[in-house]
Amino acid sequence: MMQGLPLRTVTDQRDAMSPKITVELLRQLRQAMKNSKYITEPIQAYIVPSGDAHQSEYIAPCDRRREFICGFNGSAGTAIVTEQHAALWTDGRYFLQASQQMDNNWTLMKMGLKETPSQEDWLISVLPENSKVGVDPWIIAADQWKNMSKALSNAGHSLVAVKDNLIDAIWEDRPPRPSTKLITLGLKYAGLTWQDKVTALRGKMAERKISWFVVTALDEIAWLFNLRGSDIEYNPVFFAYAIIGISSIKLFVDSKRLLHPAVREHLELDSPSKSELTIQCFSYESVYTELQAVCVALAPKEKMWICDKASCALTQVIPKAHRSAIPYTPLCLAKAVKNPTEIQGMKMAHIKDAVALCELFAWLEKEIPKGKVTEISVADKAEELRSQQKDFVGLSFPTISSVGPNGAIIHYRPLPETNRTLSLNEVYLIDSGAQYLDGTTDVTRTVHFGTPSDYEKECFTYVLKGHIAVSAAVFPNGTKGHLLDSFARASLWDSGLDYLHGTGHGVGCFLNVHEGPCGISYKTFADEPLEAGMIVSDEPGYYEDGSFGIRLENVVLVIPAKTKYNYRNRGSLTFEPLTLVPIQLKMINTDLLTQKERDWVNDYHRKCRETVGAELERQARKVALDWLIQETQPIV
Amino acid sequence: MMQGLPLRTVTDQRDAMSPKITVELLRQLRQAMKNSKYITEPIQAYIVPSGDAHQSEYIAPCDRRREFICGFNGSAGTAIVTEQHAALWTDGRYFLQASQQMDNNWTLMKMGLKETPSQEDWLISVLPENSKVGVDPWIIAADQWKNMSKALSNAGHSLVAVKDNLIDAIWEDRPPRPSTKLITLGLKYAGLTWQDKVTALRGKMAERKISWFVVTALDEIAWLFNLRGSDIEYNPVFFAYAIIGISSIKLFVDSKRLLHPAVREHLELDSPSKSELTIQCFSYESVYTELQAVCVALAPKEKMWICDKASCALTQVIPKAHRSAIPYTPLCLAKAVKNPTEIQGMKMAHIKDAVALCELFAWLEKEIPKGKVTEISVADKAEELRSQQKDFVGLSFPTISSVGPNGAIIHYRPLPETNRTLSLNEVYLIDSGAQYLDGTTDVTRTVHFGTPSDYEKECFTYVLKGHIAVSAAVFPNGTKGHLLDSFARASLWDSGLDYLHGTGHGVGCFLNVHEGPCGISYKTFADEPLEAGMIVSDEPGYYEDGSFGIRLENVVLVIPAKTKYNYRNRGSLTFEPLTLVPIQLKMINTDLLTQKERDWVNDYHRKCRETVGAELERQARKVALDWLIQETQPIV
Repeated sequence: MMQGLPLRTVTDQRDAMSPKITVELLRQLRQAMKNSKYITEPIQAYIVPSGDAHQSEYIAPCDRRREFICGFNGSAGTAIVTEQHAALWTDGRYFLQASQQMDNNWTLMKMGLKETPSQEDWLISVLPENSKVGVDPWIIAADQWKNMSKALSNAGHSLVAVKDNLIDAIWEDRPPRPSTKLITLGLKYAGLTWQDKVTALRGKMAERKISWFVVTALDEIAWLFNLRGSDIEYNPVFFAYAIIGISSIKLFVDSKRLLHPAVREHLELDSPSKSELTIQCFSYESVYTELQAVCVALAPKEKMWICDKASCALTQVIPKAHRSAIPYTPLCLAKAVKNPTEIQGMKMAHIKDAVALCELFAWLEKEIPKGKVTEISVADKAEELRSQQKDFVGLSFPTISSVGPNGAIIHYRPLPETNRTLSLNEVYLIDSGAQYLDGTTDVTRTVHFGTPSDYEKECFTYVLKGHIAVSAAVFPNGTKGHLLDSFARASLWDSGLDYLHGTGHGVGCFLNVHEGPCGISYKTFADEPLEAGMIVSDEPGYYEDGSFGIRLENVVLVIPAKTKYNYRNRGSLTFEPLTLVPIQLKMINTDLLTQKERDWVNDYHRKCRETVGAELERQARKVALDWLIQETQPIV
Repeated sequence: MMQGLPLRTVTDQRDAMSPKITVELLRQLRQAMKNSKYITEPIQAYIVPSGDAHQSEYIAPCDRRREFICGFNGSAGTAIVTEQHAALWTDGRYFLQASQQMDNNWTLMKMGLKETPSQEDWLISVLPENSKVGVDPWIIAADQWKNMSKALSNAGHSLVAVKDNLIDAIWEDRPPRPSTKLITLGLKYAGLTWQDKVTALRGKMAERKISWFVVTALDEIAWLFNLRGSDIEYNPVFFAYAIIGISSIKLFVDSKRLLHPAVREHLELDSPSKSELTIQCFSYESVYTELQAVCVALAPKEKMWICDKASCALTQVIPKAHRSAIPYTPLCLAKAVKNPTEIQGMKMAHIKDAVALCELFAWLEKEIPKGKVTEISVADKAEELRSQQKDFVGLSFPTISSVGPNGAIIHYRPLPETNRTLSLNEVYLIDSGAQYLDGTTDVTRTVHFGTPSDYEKECFTYVLKGHIAVSAAVFPNGTKGHLLDSFARASLWDSGLDYLHGTGHGVGCFLNVHEGPCGISYKTFADEPLEAGMIVSDEPGYYEDGSFGIRLENVVLVIPAKTKYNYRNRGSLTFEPLTLVPIQLKMINTDLLTQKERDWVNDYHRKCRETVGAELERQARKVALDWLIQETQPIV
């Protein structure tokens, strides 16, 4: 699934797209903006960002404050309320949805249009002189705070941190912060003990003369400690912070979660082996005061790492002279390069996932002619089939299941009111994935159950050529993923076509389906070089508005490539597909493929047949096996 | 020629690579650093940057201050002298040369190596507490000043602007600043009057509510006023500044240059047609005081553009509240998109250039067996042949003429002590170009006069495939050049090969052979999107150390492409080669080419034969014409 896609919860999906009535809420918020219970001086505007305190891509229900105040539940958007106005900024994917979900107390600010003012410019234009603009410093990133603060003070206003969140203050039935059961991952799944990971991290810190590292990203904490949770839907993470010192480890997490004997044993809470690997546990909320205490005790030249995407609140605790803000943390990098156990797990997870999808497609071929299969029912069936696989935990994102014109809506997710029935006449696109204890999957296939038109086949074939161009690319060590993005587009470009999303994102191992710091996109220039062991998606597409959508996505592993020569001993890399689901031959215009591309397709299908075939046999799934064999015939 | 290559003057070339004795010069400089004649308080370090006051890529002899103080005459490098130390920072291209040209008073700081400290870190490590570091604010760019100043003050030191250049103070026989005769370009060459260019510029200024624009780049001033000079070798520019207001034009240039009637008439100095198009002339040196006067008179909200690469001295004259620093100026953009007259001129210049090169190659085929042709004599012959063409002005850069292993030194230029003789046994690479009144050329061909080895042919063919991949690429409007860079490398990458320079640079029209803001490089992320009318080079290569070098360079014009479809009405672009010099068929392993690539070569050669053939016939150059016909036979 492409990065930057919206996430709606199951509840949301069932909601009608009707505006939320916000008169009373806005009245209460504006009162709170003057209430000395929360603030020392009245504020003239209050900013409600989208994110949580960890800058997570997906958030828990208790953090859906922007949705609460304005009704709009897309994944991206910032609300600002002044004494007179209320406005919401969101991007092109959401103009329609936002306008349907908000009442007329709200002005929709369409980002990306020339006439739309930035939040700063708008604030400056509507605020009285010398205004105070409030924001919860926990849910604004340090760099965002800096920019906003600068713009406002240049115009004579000021940005102030409001400690108590004013939305929480008026949100009567706000759900509690989740505190789900923690899952411990042994060596069998993690490949490395958390102790070894901490030691390796400290090596990196020592190299750069860093004595402390404040870990705020939830997936980094989960990865470091070999723990998983289910606090956020689809993302097996849990709310926590960590502060890693050269000889101490501070973990901030709801203490109830640490009562379970398995967790205590895993973390060696009762019988630590070495003092520098003893975990000191604190409540989630005490990270602020504890970080203050650490900072007070810093020696003059000591430096502390914190990600520049961390919250303003925590970042500002660290005195500037001690603060080293970094765009990617060493944990983010270490997590991205999978170890042999993780790679093996990811391979297994993808084989199981392929079994479920072979079953699904075999089932669809039989069921579709009956006219009862809908976008939603396929999504449900796919989940059911995946859940039959070993170590299944849940989906890795909500299934995108789309027929015909719905497929052209890149961020489509079926709702009861948009739900189309699959037929023999329209292209069907399914983008889905799961979390297994041993790995995370994400796969898109575009198929036709009748006879695709020549144009549909032509477009599909260009997308396939782009997919192969990336998957089969050989490139020197040290190459950044964005340098490969154009390979995915060249065939489409030749015919005047294109797609308006990136080509690939990093994929976690039983972790977030989107992770940094690598990716394949024309937009990403801050990506880190690809390395053997990294795992990314390869998902070019083509979308014909009102008609159909095509996307072809495999998760691929970066591996060393054997080349004829080896310039300056740099070594080369290429990709190995982990996803092993047949690509529908019916959709391919083979005349448009080169011999090399035909060979690639045949090799890929041979591997699908061998690897997934063996597992289908082991699981005695005869129908799916027959389907697999039929779908992996070589093309000539 | 690849951007970032060194420029040595003819004098330099003849110099032996022996160290300059700097004991006395350093003594004098260190005295000047304490001399109250130049500075109010002694400084503990003095920085000598490479550039001139206009951040020119190539500089005039009077601006070669860094070379004067340390002896190293490469194109890139910064010298820093403290009371105890003297150090020079330069990059990998120059480690050998710098070590040969500097005496042991100097420490060579090898940039790009892990153990090499940055200038800031080094200064901080060697300076006594509370030191003052001086630099001439005219030759340090505003953004460089900012970074250096910040680093030093964080460590308790300060960066101070030293008005009098201390190198000039001790440089006894420093050459005077050149003030060459100005050439006026009429509509026939420029396509637009300078008045129309000023009016268009003012339109852009009004659009962005900008009331003044300080023009500091020499090629922008030359382009704006349709004037050329020869103050800097190979670059037809002249030392000047301009300040353009909404209703006034201030030109700062040596007044002697404006005495010529043709120049006075061209600039309408004596009979201006409209008051807002009247040019006020000032001396070159008075730009500082005049800019101060303009700034004093600014209304509260008035904004002034200046490029962020302009000198610190001029930038800081503009109060922050009025300053709008931009990475690329509207003149840089306007200049990059050639108008129809310029395009026609560039085409003509390239045909004439091809005539000279056909003559050269025909001559070489006859002369080489005699064993008397050297790298230097080919370069001289090429210049002689070009100078026979109409409107020839000079070379656009020093010819790179290299045989065998010399070709693998990317920035090679033949010196008497390295000069090799061309033979039937080695690969020969020539990268050369000229300035004509109607355009600028830059072409590289790699040839073999005997029988190339299979390996040489294989490498050449990969480079050719990369060249074609860029030249024939079709891409949407709005695409930035760096997204095309990998196309040039894919074939080399497949075999484990690569080249360590960018693929293309913008080319001026009778202006600098390297210009912004477009280019094709894996390094350039701040490039502007390609537009129809832009002109860039396409020059992949491959270099086998100690053995041979291959590069294949055409200058290409961005043109609209006709495509089968037109996604979202964006339109597509592609390239049309302006360079029309045959690519040596003998060097191609045609088995490695696809049919499309063979067709491209044949189409290209057909165009060379038709277009250049007609001109060769017109010029009655029979031998060259025969050579052209023989070299442009279609491959099958």
